[in-house]
Amino acid sequence: MGEPISIAVVGGGAAGISAASMAKRTNPDATVVCCTEYEDVAYSPCGIPYVLGREIPEFERLFLIGPEQYAEVGIDLRRETSVSAIDLDNRTMTANGNNISWDRLIICSGFNYLLPEVEGNDVDGIVFVKNIRRGIELDQRLDSVKKAVVLEGTPLGVEMLAALAHRGIETHLVDPGSWLLSQIADADIAEPVQKSLEDLGVALHFGAELEGFERSGDGLAGVATSEGTIEADLCVVATHKEPETALARSIGLKVGSSGGIEVNARMRTSHEAVYAAGDCVEVPQGLTGIAVQGLTGAHAMQQGRVAGANAGDGDRTYDPVYVPWGMVGGNVQIGGASFGEHLATTLGIPHIVARANGISRARYYPGVQQVIVKLIAEPGTGKLIGAQMVGGEGVKERADFLAFALKRGVTLDDLAWMENVYSPPIGALYEPMSVAAQNGLAQL
Amino acid sequence: MGEPISIAVVGGGAAGISAASMAKRTNPDATVVCCTEYEDVAYSPCGIPYVLGREIPEFERLFLIGPEQYAEVGIDLRRETSVSAIDLDNRTMTANGNNISWDRLIICSGFNYLLPEVEGNDVDGIVFVKNIRRGIELDQRLDSVKKAVVLEGTPLGVEMLAALAHRGIETHLVDPGSWLLSQIADADIAEPVQKSLEDLGVALHFGAELEGFERSGDGLAGVATSEGTIEADLCVVATHKEPETALARSIGLKVGSSGGIEVNARMRTSHEAVYAAGDCVEVPQGLTGIAVQGLTGAHAMQQGRVAGANAGDGDRTYDPVYVPWGMVGGNVQIGGASFGEHLATTLGIPHIVARANGISRARYYPGVQQVIVKLIAEPGTGKLIGAQMVGGEGVKERADFLAFALKRGVTLDDLAWMENVYSPPIGALYEPMSVAAQNGLAQL
Repeated sequence: MGEPISIAVVGGGAAGISAASMAKRTNPDATVVCCTEYEDVAYSPCGIPYVLGREIPEFERLFLIGPEQYAEVGIDLRRETSVSAIDLDNRTMTANGNNISWDRLIICSGFNYLLPEVEGNDVDGIVFVKNIRRGIELDQRLDSVKKAVVLEGTPLGVEMLAALAHRGIETHLVDPGSWLLSQIADADIAEPVQKSLEDLGVALHFGAELEGFERSGDGLAGVATSEGTIEADLCVVATHKEPETALARSIGLKVGSSGGIEVNARMRTSHEAVYAAGDCVEVPQGLTGIAVQGLTGAHAMQQGRVAGANAGDGDRTYDPVYVPWGMVGGNVQIGGASFGEHLATTLGIPHIVARANGISRARYYPGVQQVIVKLIAEPGTGKLIGAQMVGGEGVKERADFLAFALKRGVTLDDLAWMENVYSPPIGALYEPMSVAAQNGLAQL
Repeated sequence: MGEPISIAVVGGGAAGISAASMAKRTNPDATVVCCTEYEDVAYSPCGIPYVLGREIPEFERLFLIGPEQYAEVGIDLRRETSVSAIDLDNRTMTANGNNISWDRLIICSGFNYLLPEVEGNDVDGIVFVKNIRRGIELDQRLDSVKKAVVLEGTPLGVEMLAALAHRGIETHLVDPGSWLLSQIADADIAEPVQKSLEDLGVALHFGAELEGFERSGDGLAGVATSEGTIEADLCVVATHKEPETALARSIGLKVGSSGGIEVNARMRTSHEAVYAAGDCVEVPQGLTGIAVQGLTGAHAMQQGRVAGANAGDGDRTYDPVYVPWGMVGGNVQIGGASFGEHLATTLGIPHIVARANGISRARYYPGVQQVIVKLIAEPGTGKLIGAQMVGGEGVKERADFLAFALKRGVTLDDLAWMENVYSPPIGALYEPMSVAAQNGLAQL
C-alpha cells in the first residue's frame, strides 16, 4: 500500500483518465481527483468524423463507460469543472471556485485548433471537430450544408474531407502545402490518397493560403485564399494541434521548442511535484531527440499511464517515440513510422530511399491489395531511419512493426532477411517490407 | 565477376528456383543448371487448395512466369529431369541418363506425404495435394465425389477441409490428436477454427487412429479408424511433411534428428561442395536450437537464396528460425510464432501465459474483429518464448512482428509499452499484443 497522498489531474481526455486510473492503481491509498471542463469523459473523439460521415450510425457508440464507473474505482471525477488557477507554494488549485489540495499534480490539458487570425473569423460557420457535444450539433448542421471547406490536409482534415463528401456535400480542401498530409507524408505516398479523395468528388487546392472569411448576413459565404475565393457555408478548421499550455505557463513550467510542456522521461515537468502528459507535452523523437508533440490518442494514454504511475509513487519511464502512424484517406490506407524522405531531407539527415510495390496476399488470391513500402535508411550502414506506406490493407500492423524495429536499430539487412508468414489468403510469399529492404541493399 | 564454376541444383520448387537464381546473380560467370522431375516450375503449390475450393477460378492463376524466362537470365532449367545418382568423387550427377558435372551442388529435394502403411492403401481414391498436374486431375474428380476424409488436421488438412466443404462434399477429418493443428496450435486457440469448420458442415473426428481403407471394386468405400469406419469415396492424405532425403543419404550426407539434411548456417551440408535448402533440410529453432523442418514456402525461398549465394562464392548466413506462421481455417485466421503453451509444456520450458481478447479496429467501427493474443513468456524475466493468435484480421502481420521481436529477445515489458497506431478504421486504441503483455506483467 502507498502513502495517503492527494493526486489531482487536470483534464479528462485519454491522458487525464489514464493518469488518474494508473495513479489510483499504483497507490490505492491515494486520493485521486480528476477535473474536466467538459460534460463527458471516456468517449472516443477520434470517432467523431466517422459518425459525421455516416460510417458509424450514432454518437452513442463512441462512449465506452459511464462516468459513475470512476467512482467505483475510487476516482473523484468532476465534470464541467474548470481549473482556473494553481498555487504551487500551497499545492492547491481552484476549480469552479473551490479549493482542491494536492501533493502531486498531473496536467493533461490537451490541445486546441487555433481560430485563424484573418478577417471575418467571427462569422457563423467556422467549426472545430474535437468535442462530442459540438460534434452532435455539427451533425445536425450538416443536413443543410451545401458547400464546405476543410482547412488543411492534416489527418483530421483528411478524415473530414471524406466524411463531408460521404454526406453529399461539395467539399474543398484549402492547404498551404504542396500535397496532402505534407507535414508527415511524402508526396508520392500521399498521391494515391489524393486520387481516392478526388474520386469521392473532393476538390483539392494546394499552395492556397487562407486570406479571410466572407460573409452573407451572419453566415459564412466563402473562404478567401491566395488562389481565389471558394464558396462555402461551412469551414472545418483542421490545422496543426496546438498544445494547451496556458495553465502550465501561469505557474512557470518550462515549455519547449515545439510549444509543448517540457517533461523528463518520468513525465515530470520542471516542477518536482507536477507531471504532465498527452497533447500538451512534448517528448523526444527516438532517432534525433527532436521534441515532438501532437501525437495520437494511444500515445496520450501511455504517457498518462507513466505520469500516473510516477505521481502515485511508482517508477516508470516513457521512452523516446518513433511514432507509428496510420489512417484511412478516402479508400486508401496510409501510414509510416519516424521520418519520411521529405522530412529526412528537410532535417538534413543523409539517407537512401528503398521502395517496393508489394502485395498483401498471394497475387492470385481474391482481395489482394497493393502495399507500397518506402524505407529511409542511413547510407553505408543501412540503419533504418523511417518508413512510409500506402496501400489497401495491413498498414497499421506494419507501422507498429517498423516503429518497434526502428527503436531496436534495425538495418535493411535485418529486414531483407526477416521471416514472414506465407499463406495465400493472408500473406504473400514476399513480405513488402522485406522486398523494399532487398531493393535498398542493392543500392548500398 | 566470379569464377567460371558449374553449379547444379536438384529440385525446382521455391528453394531450388531461388537457389539457382541467387547463384547466377551472385556469380554471373557460373554455369547454373537446375533439374526438376516435374513438368512445371514457378507456380504456387500453396494455392492448389483454393482452386479446388473454387475461391480461385482457375489453376492458370497459380503460375508466375513461364519456364523460358529462366533461359533469359542464364539458368539451364531442365524439366521432367530426374536426378538418379550423384558421384561425389567426380562431382557429377546422372539426370535422365545424362552426365552433368558440377563444382557445387545444391540439393532442394523437398518433402513427401507418406502413403499410410495400413491395409488397402493401394485403393483408388487416396490422393495427395502437392503437384499442380495432380491437382488439376483431382479438381475434375471432385465433381463426382460425395464423401471425403482428410487425414490429419495439419495446415494443408485444414485448408482441404474447407475446400471440400465449399465444393458441397460431405467432409470428415480423421486426426489422432486431440484438437485441430495440435502439432503447432494450442487447443484454446484452435477452438474457434474448429467451430468455423463445423459451421461449414465438416465433421471432426479427433483421437481417431487410421486403421485401413475399405474398398468397393477398385475404388475407396470407407476409411476405417479406431473410432469407427467413415464412408468415403476420397481420402486426402495431409499428414506431416517428410523430408525427401533419399538422394542425400545415397551420398552419405548427414541427416539430423528431425529427419532433415543437416546444414550449417551457410546452408552447407556435411560435404564441403554440397549445399541444401528447403523442405529437405532441418534448421535450428532460435530459442532452443532444436532442429525443425517442414517450414513455409517463404522459408524455403530464403534458404534457397542463402545456399545459392554461397554456392556462387558469396558469403551469406541463414539465421536460426522463430517461424512466424498463419493461415485461414474456415473463416478464422490463426497463427503465431515460436512455441505455444502446449509445446512449451511438452518441451519442459518453464513459462507463464498472458492472454488478451483484443480487437482489430475501434470497437465501434464497422468490420471490427476479435483478435485473441496469447503470449508465452519466461517467468521472472518476462522474456517472450512464443505467441499464438486467433481472430478475424491482422494475424499474419502480428505473427511477423512477434517472430522479429522474439529474435531480438523482447520482453513482456517491451510489448506492454510498445507504440501503436490508433485510427478507428484500422487500429484500436489498445493493441491486442500490448494488452496481452500488460496482463502478463500483472502476473509476474
